[in-house]
Amino acid sequence: MINPYEAFKNAVQANIDKPIENWDRITEQMATLSIKKGDYLIRAGNTVEEVYFCVKGIFRLFYLLEDGSEFIKSFCYENEFVTSYGALVNSFESPFSIQALEDSIVIVISKGLLEELIRNSRVWEMVVRKEVEKLYLKKEKREMEFLNLNATERYNNFIKEYPELVYRIPQYYIASYLGISPVSLSRLIKELKN
Amino acid sequence: MINPYEAFKNAVQANIDKPIENWDRITEQMATLSIKKGDYLIRAGNTVEEVYFCVKGIFRLFYLLEDGSEFIKSFCYENEFVTSYGALVNSFESPFSIQALEDSIVIVISKGLLEELIRNSRVWEMVVRKEVEKLYLKKEKREMEFLNLNATERYNNFIKEYPELVYRIPQYYIASYLGISPVSLSRLIKELKN
Repeated sequence: MINPYEAFKNAVQANIDKPIENWDRITEQMATLSIKKGDYLIRAGNTVEEVYFCVKGIFRLFYLLEDGSEFIKSFCYENEFVTSYGALVNSFESPFSIQALEDSIVIVISKGLLEELIRNSRVWEMVVRKEVEKLYLKKEKREMEFLNLNATERYNNFIKEYPELVYRIPQYYIASYLGISPVSLSRLIKELKN
Repeated sequence: MINPYEAFKNAVQANIDKPIENWDRITEQMATLSIKKGDYLIRAGNTVEEVYFCVKGIFRLFYLLEDGSEFIKSFCYENEFVTSYGALVNSFESPFSIQALEDSIVIVISKGLLEELIRNSRVWEMVVRKEVEKLYLKKEKREMEFLNLNATERYNNFIKEYPELVYRIPQYYIASYLGISPVSLSRLIKELKN
C-alpha cells in the first residue's frame, strides 16, 4: 500500500499549480487513524476539532431524524477531505454523524494545524479554498438534482459520478442518499437492466 | 448614499485582517449596475460570467420547477456577493434564476478579473475562500433546519437571522423559502402573535 502521507500529498498537489513546501515538517504534526467498519469518525452532538483526509475507505455523513429515520447527506471516500465543516469552523456541535462503511484509514489534521497552515501559507489557503468550493458545488448539484430530476435520473447521475462506489456501498444507503425507499431503488435498477 | 465602491471595500475589508492593496486600480475594472424591481440579474439556462456585490437591494435565488412551481434557494441583500457560483466556476448554464425584489444596485466583477485577483493576491484568495465558506455554511445550516426543525422553528430562525428582511420581502416568498404555503405562514405568524 502507498504511504498515507504520499497519497495525501499527491491528492493535495494535484489540485493546485504551486508546490507545497515543508511537507515533511507539516506531516510530522499529523497522525493516521484506523476506523473499523461501522465505527464513527464524528458523532452528532459532539464538537469537532479535526479535519480528516481519507486514505482508504468510505464514510457516510448522515442526520438522525426525530422519528428515528436517517437522511444521508453525502458519501466521502479515498482522496477526499471529510469532517463536519460548519461545526469545525463555528465551534458548534455537529448536527450530523460520520460513520465508516468499510475498514478505513484517515489522516488526522487538527484545527489548530489547519489554521496555522492557512495563516502562514498562500498555497494552503488555496487548498482550503478549493476544498470548500468542492463542498459547496457538491451541495448545489445535489439540491439541483433533488429539485429537477426524477429518481431514475438521480440514480443514473450517481453511478456516472461514483461508478466504483455503487459496488462498495450497501444498496439501502444509496436509496437513502437518493431519497427513495430500498424497494423503489431495486425496482428502478431492475427496470434499467431490462 | 455611500459611494458603492466604498461600501464594497468596507464589506470586504471587514472580513479579513490584511489590507487590500491597489484598491482604486482594481475598482476601475468594475462597473455598477442598476436593476429594477422584478428584473433578472441571472436567468436559469444562461451562462454566468460575472460575480455581483449587492450595494443596495434584495435578490431571490430560485429554481423554476417542471410543474411551474418555484423553490427559493436563498435571499441575498446589502453587502453580500451574489451569483450562480457553480455555473460561474464550471462554465455551465445556471440551474436557477436571480431576481431583484427591490430596485437594486450591484457592482459587477467579471470572472476574468476575479481569477486575476485570486492569482495575483493572497488577500483576494482569502476573500474568496471566506465567501465560498459562507455560501457553504448557509447551505449546511439550511439543510439542517429543513431536516430537524418544524415550520415555526424555521420561521423563528429566519426572523432572528434576517430581522430587517422580514419587512422587505413579500410574505409569500418567505413562505416559499421556508417550504410552507402562504396560508400556513399567515396562520403561524398569527399564532406567534397570540
